[in-house]
Amino acid sequence: MSSEPVSAEAAREADENDELAFARELFRLPESVIYLDGNSLGALPAAVGPAVADLVDRQWGEQLITSWNVNDWWRLPGRVGDRIGRLIGAAEGQVMCGDSTSVQLFQALTAACRMRPGRSIILTDGAGFPTDQYLADAVADLLQLKVVRLNPGELATQLSEDVAVVAFSQVDYRTGELFDTAAITAQVHRAGALMVWDLCHSAGAIPVELDAIEADFAVGCSYKYLNGGPGAPGFLYIAQRHLRSAALPLTGWHGHRSPFTLSQRYEPAPSIERARIGTPPVLSMAALAAALTVFDRVELAAIRRKSLALTDLVIGYAQSRLAEFGVEVVTPLSHDRRGSQVALRMPAAYEVCQELIGRGVIGDFREPDLLRLGFTPLYLRFVDVYEAMDRLADVLSDGGYADGRYASRTVVT
Amino acid sequence: MSSEPVSAEAAREADENDELAFARELFRLPESVIYLDGNSLGALPAAVGPAVADLVDRQWGEQLITSWNVNDWWRLPGRVGDRIGRLIGAAEGQVMCGDSTSVQLFQALTAACRMRPGRSIILTDGAGFPTDQYLADAVADLLQLKVVRLNPGELATQLSEDVAVVAFSQVDYRTGELFDTAAITAQVHRAGALMVWDLCHSAGAIPVELDAIEADFAVGCSYKYLNGGPGAPGFLYIAQRHLRSAALPLTGWHGHRSPFTLSQRYEPAPSIERARIGTPPVLSMAALAAALTVFDRVELAAIRRKSLALTDLVIGYAQSRLAEFGVEVVTPLSHDRRGSQVALRMPAAYEVCQELIGRGVIGDFREPDLLRLGFTPLYLRFVDVYEAMDRLADVLSDGGYADGRYASRTVVT
Repeated sequence: MSSEPVSAEAAREADENDELAFARELFRLPESVIYLDGNSLGALPAAVGPAVADLVDRQWGEQLITSWNVNDWWRLPGRVGDRIGRLIGAAEGQVMCGDSTSVQLFQALTAACRMRPGRSIILTDGAGFPTDQYLADAVADLLQLKVVRLNPGELATQLSEDVAVVAFSQVDYRTGELFDTAAITAQVHRAGALMVWDLCHSAGAIPVELDAIEADFAVGCSYKYLNGGPGAPGFLYIAQRHLRSAALPLTGWHGHRSPFTLSQRYEPAPSIERARIGTPPVLSMAALAAALTVFDRVELAAIRRKSLALTDLVIGYAQSRLAEFGVEVVTPLSHDRRGSQVALRMPAAYEVCQELIGRGVIGDFREPDLLRLGFTPLYLRFVDVYEAMDRLADVLSDGGYADGRYASRTVVT
Repeated sequence: MSSEPVSAEAAREADENDELAFARELFRLPESVIYLDGNSLGALPAAVGPAVADLVDRQWGEQLITSWNVNDWWRLPGRVGDRIGRLIGAAEGQVMCGDSTSVQLFQALTAACRMRPGRSIILTDGAGFPTDQYLADAVADLLQLKVVRLNPGELATQLSEDVAVVAFSQVDYRTGELFDTAAITAQVHRAGALMVWDLCHSAGAIPVELDAIEADFAVGCSYKYLNGGPGAPGFLYIAQRHLRSAALPLTGWHGHRSPFTLSQRYEPAPSIERARIGTPPVLSMAALAAALTVFDRVELAAIRRKSLALTDLVIGYAQSRLAEFGVEVVTPLSHDRRGSQVALRMPAAYEVCQELIGRGVIGDFREPDLLRLGFTPLYLRFVDVYEAMDRLADVLSDGGYADGRYASRTVVT
């Protein structure tokens, strides 16, 4: 926790000293909105529009099918994968971009379980994102295994020689709790199991060191802190040592060791190319490729420093000025256990969230009682975050949100 | 077969009488290229550029996460699915758009096999597209079944009480042979098995009547005759009668009956919504949605009529003037057995294809000896197709292509 007092003046000063201040110019941000939902959908990088227009008008429109060669669409998934790899501590040739996170998680879980024949249990976080739990069940069903849900803190009590795979998210999507990937991975390996990490809420926000911690598999999405756009493709990391043995279930022709021979039998490529499936969504992937150029100019360590300063500000504000409204900080206070978001528990959190959106601050609500605020240091200023908290204080103080105006809940992902 | 003589004059006349002539204006086509590869990647519809720019700049850039509601991104996959449904004879609520064709085929095959417990065989076309064969093997491996490859013509000899599922493509991707979906589906049902159709080479080119023929499942891609753009998302059809029982293996949260409760256990939606998986590629899907508006103005029957007239022209030309170069028409001559492409077998087909591309006619090569020409009636003129054949005749007559200039083969998908 920062020991500086929370004030508008301190926020202005923090902006003046912000080593990432320049990065805001790399984005197109709407005026009159303070966007604290980059952990659902990252804002639009300025490089995307021109890149997509070029993809559509020139590459598709003029060069048509020849673009698979002349614009190297064929290697786009691997090139984007390697770019993402640099942000998650993966040396080249271990990350493939494509499909949705769900599909990638299905690939990872199935391949990992197959590498531990005779072991019958998948351990997953019972508070983890629903898809992660559903897919553990789906894979267990197909491979006749069993899923045990637990709190990651209880891992030691559940690890046994019967555990094949442990699958956790690095950051809890609701509370923002950050788990110790190195310690957990080592613990899982000591039990002879394999570790699958879900990086949806950490890639691009938190330095991740997949190679260094000896992770086995990892997946993630690119539309949150990587700013790749709505539904931008997911990614799959397979550690170098598993690349020749990982038996991925979705055997599309792009993953074949010799795809253009169009042979009858599938033989996986002896490299990360085996993680390809079918024809990738080139438009969405070109947008992501352009979005990732933002990271050519910034260091993840700087992003992490500013993220912690921003969440310090929010936590300090909430503790000192919002407790009177029944607001409780759910996100861990310790820096080494905190992701890039702050979850605030409060009465009528859904209505407060809606009222706050009406006042130009976009955050989101998570069942049953959490206001979840996400912080992307690349485009957020300290003064904006301070202003957002002032508006939250106003909403809570005014109290009008509870008059039934938000009785009919709308869909927000 | 048309009985009209093949001539430049007849081609000009055909264009004058072309009821689809207006549709060419709905596309952005490169000058100086005759594009006979719309069965690999359809050309760019004029509506796409503005739709994608709006998606990026306004919906994503300005409205950010709220676009899931205000621009109804949430229902985009189902809306696009229904649009595709109209082109494949499916009443509303049976087609979902998303992911790649490979993923959709995995979903369909797995769900279909699960509906025939106790039966152990998947029948698939041994000359079918490689992914279709690979995924049959992959599903068989997971469910402990067996794949038998056959020629669709031998189906009667292979159908037994042990066959769970038959999976064929409606059009052979190499030869262009069109199969009788109604007769085959009925035959498969009489044996108590389920039928999965791959419509990659028919959707948008050939009237398909999934409901009428009582198909069980179907999949397809949208980047060929639907012109959705490179890697545009695939689709999955599930017949109404199977919607509550189809157990799809990829259980992402978007397919949950109540996704926003974010509950721990997966319960599939009791509708086509269960075919959703994770967050869809909104950019690619918005491009596809715009591309499909072309079909609001044309009838599939008209497309089919013109397609047959174009392939008649090509076949007539090949038979009368290219036989002397060893060219053989592989595609069936009978209209009711012909897709929207013509495959010509010839010596040095790869080199001829490359030389033809160099002379402004884009077709493609298929191993080992086929020049494959695809015909999209929406944007092809008869005079262009006639001119393309003249250039092919020139290439064959000149013979220079065999001098080693194309010895190093490049990737073309």
